[in-house]
Amino acid sequence: MDISQFFPVWDKLEENDRNALAAAAIRRSFKKGTVLHRGSEDCTGLMLVRSGQIRAYTVSPEGKEITLYRLFERDICLFSASCIINSLQVDVSLTAEKDSEITVIPADVYKKIMQRSAPLSNFTNEIMASRFSDVMWLVEQIMWKSFDKRLAAFLVEESVMEGSETLKLTHETIGNHLGSPREVVTRMLKYFADEGLVSLARGTVTLSDPQRLAEIAES
Amino acid sequence: MDISQFFPVWDKLEENDRNALAAAAIRRSFKKGTVLHRGSEDCTGLMLVRSGQIRAYTVSPEGKEITLYRLFERDICLFSASCIINSLQVDVSLTAEKDSEITVIPADVYKKIMQRSAPLSNFTNEIMASRFSDVMWLVEQIMWKSFDKRLAAFLVEESVMEGSETLKLTHETIGNHLGSPREVVTRMLKYFADEGLVSLARGTVTLSDPQRLAEIAES
Repeated sequence: MDISQFFPVWDKLEENDRNALAAAAIRRSFKKGTVLHRGSEDCTGLMLVRSGQIRAYTVSPEGKEITLYRLFERDICLFSASCIINSLQVDVSLTAEKDSEITVIPADVYKKIMQRSAPLSNFTNEIMASRFSDVMWLVEQIMWKSFDKRLAAFLVEESVMEGSETLKLTHETIGNHLGSPREVVTRMLKYFADEGLVSLARGTVTLSDPQRLAEIAES
Repeated sequence: MDISQFFPVWDKLEENDRNALAAAAIRRSFKKGTVLHRGSEDCTGLMLVRSGQIRAYTVSPEGKEITLYRLFERDICLFSASCIINSLQVDVSLTAEKDSEITVIPADVYKKIMQRSAPLSNFTNEIMASRFSDVMWLVEQIMWKSFDKRLAAFLVEESVMEGSETLKLTHETIGNHLGSPREVVTRMLKYFADEGLVSLARGTVTLSDPQRLAEIAES
């Protein structure tokens, strides 16, 4: 996978900036379980996920962890390069959850180009906004809780009622059942899918792990 | 206060961009208690706080609130203009906590300039990173700190902000700030009162021992 594929704005970059990014990129492989980045200790660079799966999380002083979000193929991790933005003071750690192929763009190279390139800066803004939205969503889940339980309970009940683990339901229909906006349903289903609890296809939701869904519903 | 004072990058902007920003800026006044922005309903524009105090918070489907951060004189609020960044999907509400003088830069004007101006885009990145860091800090507070520390920290910060050791706050208001039920607040305040840390009266909390409260907050 070429690094241009990670940047929708690639064609808007100056040729010398494209060349500088490509020349600085370093390919690395990480075995499952490897810690790629630990809090604010280092500022390796932007990590482009060519394959595999990365977990982003924070660690408490006592060693407790909470998952913030996951990165999959074609995702970009900004927090392994948090020094590119002065005001970004977050302690995010990264671990490979599967064997992963990563392309690293060193922080200093990226920062220099971002500072002069409006397209790259705007794109960086979008990446950060997207992670910010994930974390805000998490805050809401932690604070308001119940929706994951309600959705899990609904899916388990439907599955029992239908006598099938594959449910023909649109997100809108589910939303109508639970009195929640479609977007809220879509987002939680995506989270469930990332966690391996369900698999999604057009117009259907399949319960991959009904046991764990039932546990969530009961928790 | 001139809008140039809000933008450390003002001198790096093109003259026509500076003129466009200045020409589009609208001065507004908000009385204490006014809701300036409600979730993702509107996209008014960037809000520059000339004076006063703005609270940014999220509201649960059931009406529960949690304070995300506050904005003071010279701060810029991005979330009243979240449409300027496509991936920014956060439901932040804003209320004036004091009579406030705000300069609004309409979202479409700002977005257009940001898209072509690397300095403005990089500066926008810094604003967002700063709020992101605040919210990440909040996540950590919620996840790792026990409630006594959070409440102590809140009381100390309020006292510093108000310049007074007597705070006009109901337990319900405190609960809304901390995302906690009123009963939990009442119980912990009673505990604090028993410990000689605060004294309680109808609608007020007085810090009797700010020093020890600060120590609890830091512990």
